[in-house]
Amino acid sequence: MTHESEPLGLAELQHRLARFAAARNWQPYHTPKNLVAALSVEASELVEIFQWLTPEESARVMDDPGTAHRVADEVADVLAYLLQLCEVLGIDPLTALAAKIERNEQRFPVPGERDA
Amino acid sequence: MTHESEPLGLAELQHRLARFAAARNWQPYHTPKNLVAALSVEASELVEIFQWLTPEESARVMDDPGTAHRVADEVADVLAYLLQLCEVLGIDPLTALAAKIERNEQRFPVPGERDA
Amino acid sequence: MTHESEPLGLAELQHRLARFAAARNWQPYHTPKNLVAALSVEASELVEIFQWLTPEESARVMDDPGTAHRVADEVADVLAYLLQLCEVLGIDPLTALAAKIERNEQRFPVPGERDA
Amino acid sequence: MTHESEPLGLAELQHRLARFAAARNWQPYHTPKNLVAALSVEASELVEIFQWLTPEESARVMDDPGTAHRVADEVADVLAYLLQLCEVLGIDPLTALAAKIERNEQRFPVPGERDA
Repeated sequence: MTHESEPLGLAELQHRLARFAAARNWQPYHTPKNLVAALSVEASELVEIFQWLTPEESARVMDDPGTAHRVADEVADVLAYLLQLCEVLGIDPLTALAAKIERNEQRFPVPGERDA
Repeated sequence: MTHESEPLGLAELQHRLARFAAARNWQPYHTPKNLVAALSVEASELVEIFQWLTPEESARVMDDPGTAHRVADEVADVLAYLLQLCEVLGIDPLTALAAKIERNEQRFPVPGERDA
Repeated sequence: MTHESEPLGLAELQHRLARFAAARNWQPYHTPKNLVAALSVEASELVEIFQWLTPEESARVMDDPGTAHRVADEVADVLAYLLQLCEVLGIDPLTALAAKIERNEQRFPVPGERDA
Repeated sequence: MTHESEPLGLAELQHRLARFAAARNWQPYHTPKNLVAALSVEASELVEIFQWLTPEESARVMDDPGTAHRVADEVADVLAYLLQLCEVLGIDPLTALAAKIERNEQRFPVPGERDA
């Protein structure tokens, strides 16, 4: 219960989520298929907050403390299920993202920077 | 173009994504509303991989190299849009997740561990 | 208030939904972009009901009256947003579906029925 | 192969979809859990068409014949999975929607029409 004070890295949070699920015997529910469903449901809960907003209103969504908290909470839910999915599949999310960014930098060259 | 060798942290990848979008003038498209839509679309592309699999098949999804690569790629896409959303909204995803885990540890106590 | 007794067709329900939105001045919110977001959110609320169930449990979901009502309610929400989307875009959903079935019958021939 | 000419009702299309799946032995895949996942994936493919558009651009999406065809095709996919879900769960989608509209008319009264 003294976790609040220390800065946490992604890997440590992933381990805490794994211990959290194990302590509650939730692993049988955490098949990859179920975790991707849960991930998509949480992503849709984020969409729900924004669905009727104009683009301009959506840019001001953090101005209201209640909505700001709700958005941060759904962001946390998406990240939690993504890390739990990576845990059960043995994927390193940072390595996967770095590789993706490399590929995208090849795929979408910056205009005028080809020979830089 | 020498990014591959160094280990990357979440914050650094978030900055690279921001520079990537800025260099291509994509920021006008990156409203919070659009980014949450894109995030949910990528989450659904993960679901698509698993939608007809049994729970047992879903647990073996990384055995096939082609599917394993596809899953890691979609995980990267979800994480990329989540970090870009956090960037435009000023949310720290690790702080948000740590706070959520704290709340969940209160909300779902481990049986028999109440007084530990 | 006497709508309950008569059997309703899809087109009539679509018109009632359009009148419902118009009477409440909701049309400015009903852009195609917003309606597809709302449709995907409702589809995810269906997924949420099933996300932790085994395939076998999912097949028995209508046995519990409360869950059965919840499922039917979410099915109605998905259909409602789909019809409202068709209304604003001028798409006839039955014609679109019939055309799709035709194409799928060509695309996935039944084994042994090629010359029938 | 002479289906094109006759006008089709929702119930008839639902039966054709059921025969289509049965002829290909797809029923084992069509658990309610899998069908709701597939439904949400198709809904997201609709979102993908609109995700970077402004509200104004989204309102003109049917002006381009290629995009119009793609939108109608995804609408058909959503409706197809919704009808197949209703088939396996024994839900009448029109009755469910009519009941929902009734409830919403109570829940969101039109201003000034209370005593009409």
